[in-house]
Amino acid sequence: MKRTLGVCYYPEHWPEDIWADDAARMVQAGLSWVRIGEFAWQRLEPQSGVMDFGWLDRAIDVLGNAGLKIILGTPTATPPRWMLDKHPDMLAIDEQGRPRGFGSRRHYCFSHQGFRAESKRITRLLAQRYGSKEHIQAWQTDNEYACHDTTRSYSYAATEGFQHWLAQKYQSPAALNRAWGNVFWSMDYDDFVDIGLPNLTVTEPNHPHVLDFYRYSSDMVVQFNREQVVEIRAHSAAPIIHNYMGRETSFDHFKVGADLDIASWDSYPIGFLSDRIEGSPEHKRRFLRQGDPDNQAFHHDLYRAVGRAGGAQSDAGGRWWVMEQQPGPVNWAPYNPAPLPGMARLWAWEAFAHGAETVCYFRWRQAPFAQEQMHAGLLRTDSADAPALAEALQVSQEINALPEVGTARADVALVFDYESAWAWEAQPQGADFDQFRLAFSAYRACRRAGLNVDIVPPDCGDLSAYKFTLAPGIMHLSAPLRAALAATTALIGPRTDTKTEHLSIPTPLGPNVPSLNASVVLTESLPPDVGVPLENGGKFVHWREVLEGEAPVQLRTNDGHAAIIGDKLRYLAGWPDDATWDMILRDLCADVGLTHHALPDGLRLRDTETHRFVFNYAPEPIHWNGTEIPAAGVHWQTL
Amino acid sequence: MKRTLGVCYYPEHWPEDIWADDAARMVQAGLSWVRIGEFAWQRLEPQSGVMDFGWLDRAIDVLGNAGLKIILGTPTATPPRWMLDKHPDMLAIDEQGRPRGFGSRRHYCFSHQGFRAESKRITRLLAQRYGSKEHIQAWQTDNEYACHDTTRSYSYAATEGFQHWLAQKYQSPAALNRAWGNVFWSMDYDDFVDIGLPNLTVTEPNHPHVLDFYRYSSDMVVQFNREQVVEIRAHSAAPIIHNYMGRETSFDHFKVGADLDIASWDSYPIGFLSDRIEGSPEHKRRFLRQGDPDNQAFHHDLYRAVGRAGGAQSDAGGRWWVMEQQPGPVNWAPYNPAPLPGMARLWAWEAFAHGAETVCYFRWRQAPFAQEQMHAGLLRTDSADAPALAEALQVSQEINALPEVGTARADVALVFDYESAWAWEAQPQGADFDQFRLAFSAYRACRRAGLNVDIVPPDCGDLSAYKFTLAPGIMHLSAPLRAALAATTALIGPRTDTKTEHLSIPTPLGPNVPSLNASVVLTESLPPDVGVPLENGGKFVHWREVLEGEAPVQLRTNDGHAAIIGDKLRYLAGWPDDATWDMILRDLCADVGLTHHALPDGLRLRDTETHRFVFNYAPEPIHWNGTEIPAAGVHWQTL
Amino acid sequence: MKRTLGVCYYPEHWPEDIWADDAARMVQAGLSWVRIGEFAWQRLEPQSGVMDFGWLDRAIDVLGNAGLKIILGTPTATPPRWMLDKHPDMLAIDEQGRPRGFGSRRHYCFSHQGFRAESKRITRLLAQRYGSKEHIQAWQTDNEYACHDTTRSYSYAATEGFQHWLAQKYQSPAALNRAWGNVFWSMDYDDFVDIGLPNLTVTEPNHPHVLDFYRYSSDMVVQFNREQVVEIRAHSAAPIIHNYMGRETSFDHFKVGADLDIASWDSYPIGFLSDRIEGSPEHKRRFLRQGDPDNQAFHHDLYRAVGRAGGAQSDAGGRWWVMEQQPGPVNWAPYNPAPLPGMARLWAWEAFAHGAETVCYFRWRQAPFAQEQMHAGLLRTDSADAPALAEALQVSQEINALPEVGTARADVALVFDYESAWAWEAQPQGADFDQFRLAFSAYRACRRAGLNVDIVPPDCGDLSAYKFTLAPGIMHLSAPLRAALAATTALIGPRTDTKTEHLSIPTPLGPNVPSLNASVVLTESLPPDVGVPLENGGKFVHWREVLEGEAPVQLRTNDGHAAIIGDKLRYLAGWPDDATWDMILRDLCADVGLTHHALPDGLRLRDTETHRFVFNYAPEPIHWNGTEIPAAGVHWQTL
Ligand SMILES: [Zn+2]
Ligand SMILES: [Zn+2]
Ligand SMILES: [Zn+2]
Repeated sequence: MKRTLGVCYYPEHWPEDIWADDAARMVQAGLSWVRIGEFAWQRLEPQSGVMDFGWLDRAIDVLGNAGLKIILGTPTATPPRWMLDKHPDMLAIDEQGRPRGFGSRRHYCFSHQGFRAESKRITRLLAQRYGSKEHIQAWQTDNEYACHDTTRSYSYAATEGFQHWLAQKYQSPAALNRAWGNVFWSMDYDDFVDIGLPNLTVTEPNHPHVLDFYRYSSDMVVQFNREQVVEIRAHSAAPIIHNYMGRETSFDHFKVGADLDIASWDSYPIGFLSDRIEGSPEHKRRFLRQGDPDNQAFHHDLYRAVGRAGGAQSDAGGRWWVMEQQPGPVNWAPYNPAPLPGMARLWAWEAFAHGAETVCYFRWRQAPFAQEQMHAGLLRTDSADAPALAEALQVSQEINALPEVGTARADVALVFDYESAWAWEAQPQGADFDQFRLAFSAYRACRRAGLNVDIVPPDCGDLSAYKFTLAPGIMHLSAPLRAALAATTALIGPRTDTKTEHLSIPTPLGPNVPSLNASVVLTESLPPDVGVPLENGGKFVHWREVLEGEAPVQLRTNDGHAAIIGDKLRYLAGWPDDATWDMILRDLCADVGLTHHALPDGLRLRDTETHRFVFNYAPEPIHWNGTEIPAAGVHWQTL
Repeated sequence: MKRTLGVCYYPEHWPEDIWADDAARMVQAGLSWVRIGEFAWQRLEPQSGVMDFGWLDRAIDVLGNAGLKIILGTPTATPPRWMLDKHPDMLAIDEQGRPRGFGSRRHYCFSHQGFRAESKRITRLLAQRYGSKEHIQAWQTDNEYACHDTTRSYSYAATEGFQHWLAQKYQSPAALNRAWGNVFWSMDYDDFVDIGLPNLTVTEPNHPHVLDFYRYSSDMVVQFNREQVVEIRAHSAAPIIHNYMGRETSFDHFKVGADLDIASWDSYPIGFLSDRIEGSPEHKRRFLRQGDPDNQAFHHDLYRAVGRAGGAQSDAGGRWWVMEQQPGPVNWAPYNPAPLPGMARLWAWEAFAHGAETVCYFRWRQAPFAQEQMHAGLLRTDSADAPALAEALQVSQEINALPEVGTARADVALVFDYESAWAWEAQPQGADFDQFRLAFSAYRACRRAGLNVDIVPPDCGDLSAYKFTLAPGIMHLSAPLRAALAATTALIGPRTDTKTEHLSIPTPLGPNVPSLNASVVLTESLPPDVGVPLENGGKFVHWREVLEGEAPVQLRTNDGHAAIIGDKLRYLAGWPDDATWDMILRDLCADVGLTHHALPDGLRLRDTETHRFVFNYAPEPIHWNGTEIPAAGVHWQTL
Repeated sequence: MKRTLGVCYYPEHWPEDIWADDAARMVQAGLSWVRIGEFAWQRLEPQSGVMDFGWLDRAIDVLGNAGLKIILGTPTATPPRWMLDKHPDMLAIDEQGRPRGFGSRRHYCFSHQGFRAESKRITRLLAQRYGSKEHIQAWQTDNEYACHDTTRSYSYAATEGFQHWLAQKYQSPAALNRAWGNVFWSMDYDDFVDIGLPNLTVTEPNHPHVLDFYRYSSDMVVQFNREQVVEIRAHSAAPIIHNYMGRETSFDHFKVGADLDIASWDSYPIGFLSDRIEGSPEHKRRFLRQGDPDNQAFHHDLYRAVGRAGGAQSDAGGRWWVMEQQPGPVNWAPYNPAPLPGMARLWAWEAFAHGAETVCYFRWRQAPFAQEQMHAGLLRTDSADAPALAEALQVSQEINALPEVGTARADVALVFDYESAWAWEAQPQGADFDQFRLAFSAYRACRRAGLNVDIVPPDCGDLSAYKFTLAPGIMHLSAPLRAALAATTALIGPRTDTKTEHLSIPTPLGPNVPSLNASVVLTESLPPDVGVPLENGGKFVHWREVLEGEAPVQLRTNDGHAAIIGDKLRYLAGWPDDATWDMILRDLCADVGLTHHALPDGLRLRDTETHRFVFNYAPEPIHWNGTEIPAAGVHWQTL
């Protein structure tokens, strides 16, 4: 399959008489796909039950007849105002107990059955009408689940739903009380209807109570999405996609992904570096106009894995796209600088190098009105070309010079687990402990070493294709993963397999992998300005564990405790600083015979089956293997 | 008119038998004015409808007979507790949805018609009783509108009022939907009664929705004030004043001022430097006991303009006063140091140099009880002289040696626009973008250059009297201002005339001033530690714009874009750092033949029609033109 | 009485068949006491009125028969879920108006009469059943009053209770209006039922309103505790104890203590240094694994004074214990490092050196479940020995080598007053003014000087046994303390006796101690980066006062004001930095003939009647008087 480009478009925002010209310019720019419809509920159903599909029929025809393939979005992220009259309690309630009102988007509670029925209904109507329409080549469900902190609602509907979910899971209050350890502070329940949500308690609520609520909330997203999928599949053979966000761990993307055909995500490198990625002030200044050099790649690899969960595979493994690609300054980060010239091209090529089938820029024409009027597009508000348009055209031309989509199996596997993210959110123990941050610190080290990484889900049962595996921060190992780890070269820990699935401490103490004689007997978290020095000159930061066991010690702390213990399967007893991560990967690479590159700051590699791609995220040219790669430059060579 | 001093006094706080002595000491200290009554509602009306004017009659007689002129305040900032039984919903609701309760002051919602009727009633009763009383030489409406974040209320009364206001403005929901761009996220309304207030939305509300709510809230202040003015004017010929606050942009002071005779403000230089003015730690330490060297002057010039809006003019232009002048440590800032000896004199003289008719110290005797018991007065709680009393006496003696109130027309005009402040508050685009801060950075540069500035309102239609005009951050130019700018030397921008009046982006792109061929085609905001270098060695901070157009380029960024473009009318494509502001003003002064002083840090000039005043805000003596001016010193010379 | 060790134990958390083994291991470890029951309400009363004492009977027998003395806790900190069905409004309401829900602990409002009846009932049932049981050697009421900010509730029950309390105190609204100065902003009340709680006001509420609410809230804790005491005393002769927290000033511990036999507190040195003690980053890093070197001692001395308020005296003065001693990492601080080896021993010995009768470690076995599963115990979750167990055993063996409990009267008295803490919380005047912090800065200086300190309550009437007394920050001197100070060597101030008991400013200005001719005429607070230089080279920080009066000046500020004034009784006109505190204490010691040690950073002394104890809190060995004391080392020598 050839790589393709696309764009997000809102025909309802523009006079109908410019649609045809817009479509022609899209084709001229080398775009193949256009996504429409995902915020148009009010235009499709101006009053409850009164449908107006005419404009959408015409938009689909204009765009499709111009040669564009259409992704049709369900508009459920923007319920119209009239729906609140029917369902006044459909709004989510925030953790402080306040309704989250109408006037922006995502103003619904995933647990509200009335809104769920509306969501199914509008999806069904769209699927019935457009399911067999040839121009509709893909579907998108809703938009950016979880965005704006919308996974968890503290509403009555959520309370009721949670109680039923708990009743199904535990079958009796006594079983729940045991599992949660409710005896601790007389927190036992006699009846599921007595169980509230874990917000606004006097001091912290019981961690398994929180974890189960997070699990429930994730399940509601899965159910909501599945309900739309069922409606669409009844009428359409086109693949179904959802556009995930960056650093969003509040629901299990693998589970949502299992119901979909293609994973996609919305990649805003500059906004994300500013508002959700850790980095020193120097790092943030250096990459201000490029984005973090590893954050896009991490999510590409993560959502490729999520795409694989859907079962449908392209040549590249899981099928995945970038559904929204930042083209210029956005409006929503604390500060919104413009990208370095070339980045709109680099970002697209990096996605393709990681196996993306399609990259859609967001959006075609910058809107002159409403919340995102300062969000750039490929066109300016006055319809002139914006800077990214030429870059998109360049990419579309370059695509032809390169082979089809293809991603080589990576040498390194990194396990990523959403449940663990919830567990440590419920029970951080140290104020800055965060599962994404821990996994990303390992990933960044792999990238600095020039390694290709596959992210694998926590129920992964076969790691034999990888040279080695990293599994940091996995609360509780699943049976298949436990078995797979026991049979391979891997580094697990810190904080891996030290809890039961109920977020309590197991006896015997974890980790409990047969091939590793070691257990965690003491844990400490550390403030940011204190570390635990290691014999190799590095240190543990944030977190360290004290181990006992017979396994051979690979590295010690200066105070004489094991820092890495084990043989093929090793346990890492703390959170390494960057230098220590580099040392660890250098050792692992040496052990398994992998080349460890020590890449210049900002230069990154990615291999496909046929090519090595080199990306320069730095703001200055970098010489690499005899080639000078300019700032924001992309270089490729055959393998 | 001779300059005068006054003081704020609360007869109801003190035993009646000391009033006469207090009055005598006031006269002895050279004070002419005494403000009374503005928090005394409960003493005037102890129960609903039961009036007690006796004490106020006697207080007016005692003070008036001692030779003092009285400013009588309406007591509407402090409704008594009994009023809540009549109007339980008169409380404002904060942005988080919580009622703002009884127990301090300003506990009312400007939209509440029941409270509005009470406000008119008590004002009418006072005006009827005292309107023709000779001792009453001025009136004050309410106290410090907006203080404690009280302009905007998220109450039911405000919701209803806003809906009617919108219906008047837009006439049809369809027109409103178009103006706001509600199509964007299916935010359209069928009926005005469906429109809520823009708080507690899931993500940011639509900016024009917010802007209209801010406009509405400002209008309620205007209406509230006007209702009192109507009542007073029916019975009194004395001028009517309101005492505004510092750095308060939540309502349009020009519109309130248009209904009044005299503008006044409450000047707390030390508290304001601490809690509402940007400055480096060094700056804040240096001026800890003096206040920011430019903040008082800015507000003097601003409220002189607001006074002019009232139509009544003194020789000095708009009539304006300082109604409350800090005399010593206050109680309400995070930290409350004592002023440097001499500052209570300097502040008064600076106000006079900017055209103030009257400066009233706040307050006569420090209260030993309640919220402001740590707020200094001219007397201590034990009735001994506090340090500022002698300084007040010195000023009153010095007044005689100098001519009457008089302010020369300034050479420089600075446009200040409240709507723009609301627009950028609704849509900052960069976290630290603030209209006051931008305008004040320009003003500070004028002051460092020793320039005299007039602040002008955004509907100003004649700039011909000024050598040049600055208009930074004006969202949308009014027709008169647009015409006036086209005919003068001026520097507009950044972010000037780049929006429609509905806060959307115009086509063609702004600015759209006939005499300037340039438009803003791209915008970026920048974190505090990043700047855009300019060819002159300075840089843009916070904000920069990319321009297109045929106008001549005056200055470029290092990356080759226009930084200043145009001819007589120029556009500034970013927020200059201080050094760049200084360079810009040096150039403008050279172009128009004005002297650009480069004043020492803390020394400031102000010319009246007859005199040049020199103020030393620095904590050490400064030599200037052969004179040594001590710390906190005031120097004047004839022009 | 011989010093003893104990431990906190939760038989209801463990299978009954391991109780006997646990008890045997406790005895083996040298523990004499075991505290049980304080969170077990649900196990004791699984449904309303359905009691199950069987398991507790058996636990008491098993533990008691093993030779352990039992402290039985009332379980009122953890009301079961069923109680909310009976009393839905028993929950406290937070300052923001939100109910503080079920799901952790301390979810009750002290003012709720329904819950108060439940508290009395369960206490009565326990006292009836176990009051004469020989194994029950002590009682604990509730658990950690005030913890998690639970003293103050903004509920309807609290509002009503507060109104009645005010009616009792003031007898008429007019008297209250006068006392509070409600005339200030028309805040007068006609009727006590009109008075609300001082939260959610528009700007700050009236300070005496706040102060009275804080007094009321403290009184509710006193009443609640007293009700339990009455029930227990009716059936038991065993001493009654409460376990207070660290740096908790929201209720008057002296008043609660007056109803109890023994004071105790829960000492978490590492957690408290992290989350509630001021210190430079260097200080916090240096003592990361040891805790602040003075914070434990301060609370030991404070709660010894609180124990003395109970009347019952051991040889050491007031009877007091450490009820919970940190044994390893905890779970609740922002970061939770492990103690340095030896600290679990050092902390116990320091408590004994300050006169503790008993030190109980918290807890026996780390719970593998629920909120505190990451909180270490003497045993690990898998029942293996945790590091602190050996240290506890060492202490129990060392106890035998030393004499009985005994504390010499200290040379220095420090007055500590809870009302003043509330007063300055209500009226800080400078953002970082805090009574605990001020008193603790004086205490730390005493400790650096190697002095032994007694903390005395604000109604103390005899200081004759002390060489000198410090009384910083005492809002209003009680009559007995005023008389006692006038007759002794003492340093009072800053901010001492400058207010009336209604938190207003007295005339004549304070302080008003007969032996001191000086008064505070001006006050200023200072930001953290500004100080007022003193002639001795030090400076005042945070706060300084300007004095008038005839008393001799001992020290001046560089700007010529008195910094210390007086003779035997002196007034300190600011908050000294550490160097100035050291100089002040050196002078006072010289005046009264006390040795002023200048101890190395981290080394601390404490004398009993017979021994001098030396504690090394530093992370490195310290040489002292010819002895090398290792890190975390304890050294003692006979006096
Ligand atoms: Zn988006
Ligand atoms: Zn004021
Ligand atoms: Zn505790």
